[in-house]
Amino acid sequence: MTQTPAIAQTFRAIDVIRKKRDGGELANDEITSLVDSYTRGDIPDYQVSAWLMAVVLQGMTRAETAALTDSMLHSGEVLDLSSLAAKKIDKHSTGGVGDKTSLVLAPLAAAAGLVVPMISGRGLGHTGGTLDKLEAIPDFNVNLSVAEFRRVLETCGCAMIGQTAEIAPADRKLYALRDVTATVESPYLICASIMSKKLAEGIDGLVLDVKTGSGAFMKNEKDAAFLAELMVETGERMGKRVVALITDMNQPLGCMIGNALEVVEVIKILRGEGPQDLRELCLELAGWMLRLGGIAETIEEGKQRSEKLISSGEALARFRQMVELQGGNPQTIDDPGNLPQAQHTMTLSSPKSGYISSMQCEQVGTACVVLGGGRERKEDSVDPAVGIILHKKVGDAVSAGEPLATIHYNSEIRADRAQQLLEASYRIDDSPPREARPLIHQAIGRVSGKPGDKN
Amino acid sequence: MTQTPAIAQTFRAIDVIRKKRDGGELANDEITSLVDSYTRGDIPDYQVSAWLMAVVLQGMTRAETAALTDSMLHSGEVLDLSSLAAKKIDKHSTGGVGDKTSLVLAPLAAAAGLVVPMISGRGLGHTGGTLDKLEAIPDFNVNLSVAEFRRVLETCGCAMIGQTAEIAPADRKLYALRDVTATVESPYLICASIMSKKLAEGIDGLVLDVKTGSGAFMKNEKDAAFLAELMVETGERMGKRVVALITDMNQPLGCMIGNALEVVEVIKILRGEGPQDLRELCLELAGWMLRLGGIAETIEEGKQRSEKLISSGEALARFRQMVELQGGNPQTIDDPGNLPQAQHTMTLSSPKSGYISSMQCEQVGTACVVLGGGRERKEDSVDPAVGIILHKKVGDAVSAGEPLATIHYNSEIRADRAQQLLEASYRIDDSPPREARPLIHQAIGRVSGKPGDKN
Repeated sequence: MTQTPAIAQTFRAIDVIRKKRDGGELANDEITSLVDSYTRGDIPDYQVSAWLMAVVLQGMTRAETAALTDSMLHSGEVLDLSSLAAKKIDKHSTGGVGDKTSLVLAPLAAAAGLVVPMISGRGLGHTGGTLDKLEAIPDFNVNLSVAEFRRVLETCGCAMIGQTAEIAPADRKLYALRDVTATVESPYLICASIMSKKLAEGIDGLVLDVKTGSGAFMKNEKDAAFLAELMVETGERMGKRVVALITDMNQPLGCMIGNALEVVEVIKILRGEGPQDLRELCLELAGWMLRLGGIAETIEEGKQRSEKLISSGEALARFRQMVELQGGNPQTIDDPGNLPQAQHTMTLSSPKSGYISSMQCEQVGTACVVLGGGRERKEDSVDPAVGIILHKKVGDAVSAGEPLATIHYNSEIRADRAQQLLEASYRIDDSPPREARPLIHQAIGRVSGKPGDKN
Repeated sequence: MTQTPAIAQTFRAIDVIRKKRDGGELANDEITSLVDSYTRGDIPDYQVSAWLMAVVLQGMTRAETAALTDSMLHSGEVLDLSSLAAKKIDKHSTGGVGDKTSLVLAPLAAAAGLVVPMISGRGLGHTGGTLDKLEAIPDFNVNLSVAEFRRVLETCGCAMIGQTAEIAPADRKLYALRDVTATVESPYLICASIMSKKLAEGIDGLVLDVKTGSGAFMKNEKDAAFLAELMVETGERMGKRVVALITDMNQPLGCMIGNALEVVEVIKILRGEGPQDLRELCLELAGWMLRLGGIAETIEEGKQRSEKLISSGEALARFRQMVELQGGNPQTIDDPGNLPQAQHTMTLSSPKSGYISSMQCEQVGTACVVLGGGRERKEDSVDPAVGIILHKKVGDAVSAGEPLATIHYNSEIRADRAQQLLEASYRIDDSPPREARPLIHQAIGRVSGKPGDKN
């Protein structure tokens, strides 16, 4: 033992560990004491990691999950945005490949009249991260102080930053421990981690995008729905309006993967261009955000308003304004050619004719990480320029020799590894796949999307 | 995180934690790497405590348990006693109240011609510890070096010491971590802890006394039998002859509880006196030790030889010799009045007439701890003089006002607390209990006790 256990503390961590080990339900104050003591450094990592493993294997009740979320939320500052009259609505995704919807939704919902105080994370494993994408815009600053964050929100209705030291410090400490003790994969702990950070933003409502499929952390829909229900109920217990969409991640979202390339695709969507699947998901999520924020009476109305804000150029203008307010060069938005570009490209051609029947989505994400677009180890820096442009996706017909994808790279060795992964990720069959998978599987939450519903 | 995780180590602890978390069976080299890395200090406490909790909740196969035992055993020195011609046979108890059999058995089996290289522990929770009892004998030294230990064994055939720094250091480190992370209560971890230390003694065979009942760690017989089978199989996989007796701990063993008082009772037994239950269990265990060591052909023959060694005074003489060789005053054995004695005594009288139908054995043990005979906190020192003498045990008839027990104490406040516990531990009914519980429930192991069996 290299750490000194606290002797004769009134709260005994070992009793809480034992209770959870034996499948008991912890009281609110037991959970709060554990989280508070750990955040203060009064109890050692080795007790908390044993408790985390007990939680992974024994689970938690809804009340325990809410208590854990609440104590993590209140381990730091909870923003008070009540001086802003508009409804504060955020959106969060559990992580996928090519998922750049946050960069579209924040300015889009702000243009519609909401406030979107978005605190995001970095790439994790094979998935991309919103902060890494934003930093592909030269000089864009994701490290605003709370005062600066508030000022940007007041000016343009949206701001996008990274987790600050003041927000949910318990989550930062717990997540670092979970990461090295194989205790990440628990819906209860994932829920508390996500919801504590989101609720610390001082929001009124939240739209969750829970990904499922080969490129998501939750490979099957049942697990995704379980997590979604847990997060919705936890948010509701805390008096927030929360809905979750279960959406498909069996192939990358959109056609561009890689930090600068994804910003390019965001600009396309905000210009009314870009791929259909990405556009559809952005409009659906925006519809829900507007519905939760009371801007639209129905989801459909919210989607229509969002489409108009895109075609009028208002959403793009809002994005340009936010970039400028956060230190980025707004001309990058006018001419995406100013974004970082890789030195080389290579084309992956189809080995045969047929139809794309499936893609190993996690492998595509890993290919981008391998290029340098993500981190293989925590201390790695990210290359904003590299990435992959997909020319063919599931259901598309392809001829032998036709390009499947283009790899943007700065290192031959990395490009070779990425090419192999990408090649292996495509499955090409003689006949088209029987039926297209829906992009949006289901919506979970008590906020109805039906016209006239005042919920 | 206050500890630095080892980066880029070839053995990745997190993979082993994850595998056990998910219910997988660990390979021998995975277990060995984990134990070795931890013992060397290459992996941090917080990873090992998460792994321990996964083991508690997911269990281990017999092969994993043997691999864990083996790697803990080989984390330190394994004594080579091959220069001693006699069979090396030890005995171990899982812990109880008033269980002083080790002090009888080591000299008794040595007098019969065996070598008993006994490494013991201190009191744990409500149970007493062999080392604490031995140290009630003025100047008795339980901290011999390995060389001194060997010399005592060569001279008198038995020696009793505490765990040295050289023996199973992995167990010492793991046990300290288990103790503060609620991961003590796992039969697999208990088995590996006990067996690694015992097998490090360089023994040929081992008799295990697995206690069950209200005063034992295993409250029900099923759990006790499971642990017993696990230890027997683990020992057999390592080429040792191992048997386990499941014995009753629903009331204290013998009549005296407390360190010096228990030495007094040991001397009584070695003089052919003392209470029947203690005498019976000592002879049974001795019978098995002699059978395992090839001194007797049957258990019965072993018991008869042991009885003779007691009535001839040879066993007591061997005890006296060991005490002298380990620095203790042998005159204490001749006249137990020289042992430490408490300043005061008080008598607990029966509140009514009837029969003792049961005793809360753990409470009796706790009463002795409260008097100062055990440790409430690890850093407490032990008072050798205090304790309890029971005048009535289960099945005995008692009249109102008749003494149930005498408390030997040095502090009024402690005595009052002990008295309350003791009083509450006796249950007195109008009629005698229907049937007496057997002292020895069952024997587990492949060494038959039948006459003529050459096993």
